[in-house]
Amino acid sequence: MPPAGATARAEQRATVEAAAHERRVDPALGELLEELRPFEEAHDPDSFEAGVVRVARRDYEKAVCVPPALQAELERAGSLGYRAWLQARAENDYSVMLPHIERNLDLRGQYVECFAPHDDPYDVLLDDYEPGMTTAEVVAIFARLKERLVPLIRAVTEGDPVDDSCLHGTFSYEAQRRVSMEIMRAWGMDDDAWRLDDTVHPFEVSLATGDIRLTTRFDADNVHGILSCLHEFGHGLYERQVDPRYARTSLADGVSSAFHESQSRLWENLVGRRLSTWRFFYPLLQREMPTFQSVPLETFHRALNKVQPTLRRVDADEVTYGLHVVLRFEIERELLAGSLHPRDLPDAFDARMVEYLGVRPPDLANGCLQDVHWSDMSLGYFPTYQLGNVVSVQLWERAEADLGDFDEQFEHGEFDPLVEWLREHVHRYGRLYEPRELLERAVGGPIDPEPYLGYLERKLEELFGAAVAS
Amino acid sequence: MPPAGATARAEQRATVEAAAHERRVDPALGELLEELRPFEEAHDPDSFEAGVVRVARRDYEKAVCVPPALQAELERAGSLGYRAWLQARAENDYSVMLPHIERNLDLRGQYVECFAPHDDPYDVLLDDYEPGMTTAEVVAIFARLKERLVPLIRAVTEGDPVDDSCLHGTFSYEAQRRVSMEIMRAWGMDDDAWRLDDTVHPFEVSLATGDIRLTTRFDADNVHGILSCLHEFGHGLYERQVDPRYARTSLADGVSSAFHESQSRLWENLVGRRLSTWRFFYPLLQREMPTFQSVPLETFHRALNKVQPTLRRVDADEVTYGLHVVLRFEIERELLAGSLHPRDLPDAFDARMVEYLGVRPPDLANGCLQDVHWSDMSLGYFPTYQLGNVVSVQLWERAEADLGDFDEQFEHGEFDPLVEWLREHVHRYGRLYEPRELLERAVGGPIDPEPYLGYLERKLEELFGAAVAS
Repeated sequence: MPPAGATARAEQRATVEAAAHERRVDPALGELLEELRPFEEAHDPDSFEAGVVRVARRDYEKAVCVPPALQAELERAGSLGYRAWLQARAENDYSVMLPHIERNLDLRGQYVECFAPHDDPYDVLLDDYEPGMTTAEVVAIFARLKERLVPLIRAVTEGDPVDDSCLHGTFSYEAQRRVSMEIMRAWGMDDDAWRLDDTVHPFEVSLATGDIRLTTRFDADNVHGILSCLHEFGHGLYERQVDPRYARTSLADGVSSAFHESQSRLWENLVGRRLSTWRFFYPLLQREMPTFQSVPLETFHRALNKVQPTLRRVDADEVTYGLHVVLRFEIERELLAGSLHPRDLPDAFDARMVEYLGVRPPDLANGCLQDVHWSDMSLGYFPTYQLGNVVSVQLWERAEADLGDFDEQFEHGEFDPLVEWLREHVHRYGRLYEPRELLERAVGGPIDPEPYLGYLERKLEELFGAAVAS
Repeated sequence: MPPAGATARAEQRATVEAAAHERRVDPALGELLEELRPFEEAHDPDSFEAGVVRVARRDYEKAVCVPPALQAELERAGSLGYRAWLQARAENDYSVMLPHIERNLDLRGQYVECFAPHDDPYDVLLDDYEPGMTTAEVVAIFARLKERLVPLIRAVTEGDPVDDSCLHGTFSYEAQRRVSMEIMRAWGMDDDAWRLDDTVHPFEVSLATGDIRLTTRFDADNVHGILSCLHEFGHGLYERQVDPRYARTSLADGVSSAFHESQSRLWENLVGRRLSTWRFFYPLLQREMPTFQSVPLETFHRALNKVQPTLRRVDADEVTYGLHVVLRFEIERELLAGSLHPRDLPDAFDARMVEYLGVRPPDLANGCLQDVHWSDMSLGYFPTYQLGNVVSVQLWERAEADLGDFDEQFEHGEFDPLVEWLREHVHRYGRLYEPRELLERAVGGPIDPEPYLGYLERKLEELFGAAVAS
């Protein structure tokens, strides 16, 4: 968007959001949902019929708690915050951002109070992304992650530096795109329902189960864009495999942010950084990018899995990533509780980066303004990234228990069984079950960081000999 | 959009259009507009205050004539027609398209009857694009155009063939883009409020007066994309120069399709194909595209203005373009009146192409399905393209009478006086006046094809010695 369009965009978004919210909270909708209670009760709770009424009612009951004027103001202030965020980053000037942080934080506080009483104000915001999850649960999970990840990272970074020079060089746009497309096609992407386009910040959006849009950015000097495609593919596959009968109902969506992220991280990391996967695809990579012809597969694979604390969350490796999220979660809770004032955000962020990762941001764009999420104080989203990593390994282990050794399958290019398992146990249900119940049904237990931690510890020991007490 | 997304898109568009239409026809809006009558009458009719109420009421009074269900159905059938149009073109199979033409034509007929009684059913559709214009006026104008353009084209095509080989070759994307941008910047485009992006079918869209989006397509083997940019620039400049006080009101838009097209054609043809313009910009073109270094300016200018009957409206030269529009207008009236059955559309189209232009379409994509407009039977739009050409020359002659010889200004790179004249006499008013009144105020008279015909006849005689009785 051209800069001069930002003010009008803020007004437009506020208008559309207010109009949409009016419909979400229309009393006539509430009456219809009441009329449908006998219909819902006459159907099996697992049925489409009962589910669609149940989920629509839950959405309605949440929506009516928020006055349309506040909803519109959140949208307007968020748009203005976004513009300020762009400017503050470009000029490395936090004073541009501070009033927007304060304003948006104040509005989030008003939003939280719409749902009083609550055990923890952060619960209210978390529930928008991860229905049913409590802040106390996240605190407990993140404490275990911190306890185990910090020594793990120390152990692996104390070893010999991993040579990842093969991932840097000059790579053509077309070759990167062809490699990405061929891998995703082997995983089930097709031209009938999917697109891949270019963007600055990669994302996935689906406008219907038959209209899945992936975006990525291929840089000329590294191959990160390929991994980024595989990440967005995971989001797309989830939306693509929702039961088509759910189309245009409240059920036709991913169940939560953590579940969505579990799918993107599963395809990016568990599949996309795996040796057996690349046993199958490495000849393709070498054909398209001849510089890899002199690089042994194992060297490439080690490089893909290099662990090194860095400044930016989105570029972080699979292991340090978790600490980026943990520190954001801690800061968000402190901002919301008022124990951290917005003016002190940059210092608090930088101090924790030094403490957890040993690196100090040189500027705002590599520090507390690196992510878009705080441009409108969208608190509650960050933790779901790491919960997604946790869930991804729980699903993976259960799928492998059902389907047999994945390495054996992947090195022969057999990805369909995993795609189908995910459809059967996760994707097709859309929002039919709450995340907690969906996980229970899929893996037979609650969310548990142990498989994720065990996976990382085993992998790092195998790859880099990083022996840690576990 | 991926093909599998089309059905959902049709439903989404129908839903959004129905929701928007409900608001447009909300009785509360009608009551507010009634309450505002004394306010409107207390203000000068030329004022913003009176104008915004008057125009909002006119929009409301038109909208309430159309049932929301019909409005939604037009949107749904239009989306499905679009998908069928893509398929029918790709497969050169009219049977794919026929049921959609029939359905959309039937819906247009229902729409027309919402506005009964009317003198001519086509008046109703024309009014959506060209408020206040009657079919009878268009018939009279087009009769004069046909009478003069047919012999003019014959005279010019009977002369020696014009060598336009310099416009064909190999031209880099980047060079074409830089040339286009530098020309448009000299005309007032800036990065604060404008963007230029790539597309298959060029268009302009403005989301606010500070958010002007142009799109184009640069082909490697010709420079047509540059002229296409200049065309879209004209649309963009109109939206950019609407009085900023009108933002987010009913006044903040171009007044009609013909006025919009007059602006795009003015910048594309009257400025963009002019010798004095290229006296200023040709060194830029030669610097960016060295093949032009051996081409004399006059050769390039003659090539830019070559007249040759061809199959496709969008690629047509400035002179034959008018006949493409006239034949579409005639066919649209016959379809609406029922004197031409949709199944006979391809034959009727091809026969008239032979009669008016001497060329026979080899397939549907170069024949009656070449334009998107009939995919949803958006009748009434085509004539405004040619009315725009007519208006563009009326405005041009009046501006030059006010400002002095444009050739003298352009060859020194002075385009600001024209940009400012258009702002002052056309753009800033947005929709404040009806098109007829705006034209009267700007040029001192009604729409008149004579300046346009005189301009073409003079230009062709000067350039190609095509002497015609005029």
